Amino acid sequence: MKILITAGGTTEKIDQVRAITNHSTGRLGQALADYLAANPDTTIDYVTTKQALKPKRHSNITIYTIESALDLFLQLEELTKKEHYDAIIHSMAVSDFTPAFSFSEEQLAKNLPTSSTQEELDNWFAENEQTDTTVSKISSNTEHLVLVLKKTPKIISYLREWQPKAKIIGFKLLVDVPKESLLAVAKNSLINNKTDFIFANDLTEIHGETHHGYLLSKDGTVEEAQSKSEIAALITEKIRLEESK
Amino acid sequence: MKILITAGGTTEKIDQVRAITNHSTGRLGQALADYLAANPDTTIDYVTTKQALKPKRHSNITIYTIESALDLFLQLEELTKKEHYDAIIHSMAVSDFTPAFSFSEEQLAKNLPTSSTQEELDNWFAENEQTDTTVSKISSNTEHLVLVLKKTPKIISYLREWQPKAKIIGFKLLVDVPKESLLAVAKNSLINNKTDFIFANDLTEIHGETHHGYLLSKDGTVEEAQSKSEIAALITEKIRLEESK
Repeated sequence: MKILITAGGTTEKIDQVRAITNHSTGRLGQALADYLAANPDTTIDYVTTKQALKPKRHSNITIYTIESALDLFLQLEELTKKEHYDAIIHSMAVSDFTPAFSFSEEQLAKNLPTSSTQEELDNWFAENEQTDTTVSKISSNTEHLVLVLKKTPKIISYLREWQPKAKIIGFKLLVDVPKESLLAVAKNSLINNKTDFIFANDLTEIHGETHHGYLLSKDGTVEEAQSKSEIAALITEKIRLEESK
Repeated sequence: MKILITAGGTTEKIDQVRAITNHSTGRLGQALADYLAANPDTTIDYVTTKQALKPKRHSNITIYTIESALDLFLQLEELTKKEHYDAIIHSMAVSDFTPAFSFSEEQLAKNLPTSSTQEELDNWFAENEQTDTTVSKISSNTEHLVLVLKKTPKIISYLREWQPKAKIIGFKLLVDVPKESLLAVAKNSLINNKTDFIFANDLTEIHGETHHGYLLSKDGTVEEAQSKSEIAALITEKIRLEESK
């Protein structure tokens, strides 16, 4: 079977020396790939970043390296056009936002929106995005820097469209929320993005190999895991089960 | 002799999963420390980040790990209170800005400054900085996110005050500028921060071990280096020369 895995965290350039990064070690994706590649009938396309931990070198695994959310979008679009995947495990922490334009305090004073109506604000964002010329390095000669970020493509929402038949496993990471909220948000993501599973986890419950979370399935079941190896085993079981049906 | 080295790039948290990072591998600091520690009379305090490349383990080198510009400020303040350094090599890429507060597009509409006078803007920044409560994870439920950053302490400007007698070597990295501009900016930094040397370099001339740049001295001389090992040799020579005077 053919599996696509994304892992690690994206980096969105602010300028040539600064960036917004999404923290993710890539350790879970690494564990999943190592676990799945042990089966000789499995081949894995593994999309990750330069900084992330990588799976062991393995003849079954092909690694693709990307940097930003847009890179990831283009890489996955290309791969899913060429290949049919039995399963897609989308564990990469993708930046929701990418820099659009920036103002120093002094530039902001000259460029404030003239009113706070939604229309005026929409125009303000659109005009400044168009006129912003990429700067090599943002000047540090201002007390405040106003950095405006715009949404990146929501990659998980494209996967079903690109691969109608694949088992798709998404991830939802929240920080320090009650179990009920975590499961509710994860369920929404499962429905909205038409995935087969969402693994819901809370940053406060992840420490090295310890990794607590819930695997929600579209049939409504919720299963629990306590560690990265348990998560890898659980997800592998789901993928294989579907295959043997 | 006792030497303080800073190396790597700082990370400023936006929330618990996102951060602004300053790109720096730490490779130059690593080369400098390895070079200098070879002399048994030298001890090195090495302040760096988790992500940066580290010098070889060496009984002469003590490593301190920090994350943000503020961490670095506090760490250096503490070290320079306790120790007398013969030389300080400040090669860390320190973030000029750190997140102060953020608005979604919708929040911005309700919180626009009422006029563009400097006073009103100053109030706007100050009030929002005060009321901003640290969020666990910024919501992604908005088309645009407005992230306001404030200046971090300019660490290089404190070094002379903290260590009046140390040889201080600063670094100035620009991106794709003419040699004259690079040297002029570096000279200003040398004068304003009362350093003994500034190493001026351009990101477009750094590729792995290849690392072109100019070492400006407060006596007006400018020397050139083509690689990380040449830079390490040149800076070491300057530190030792000063010692033997």
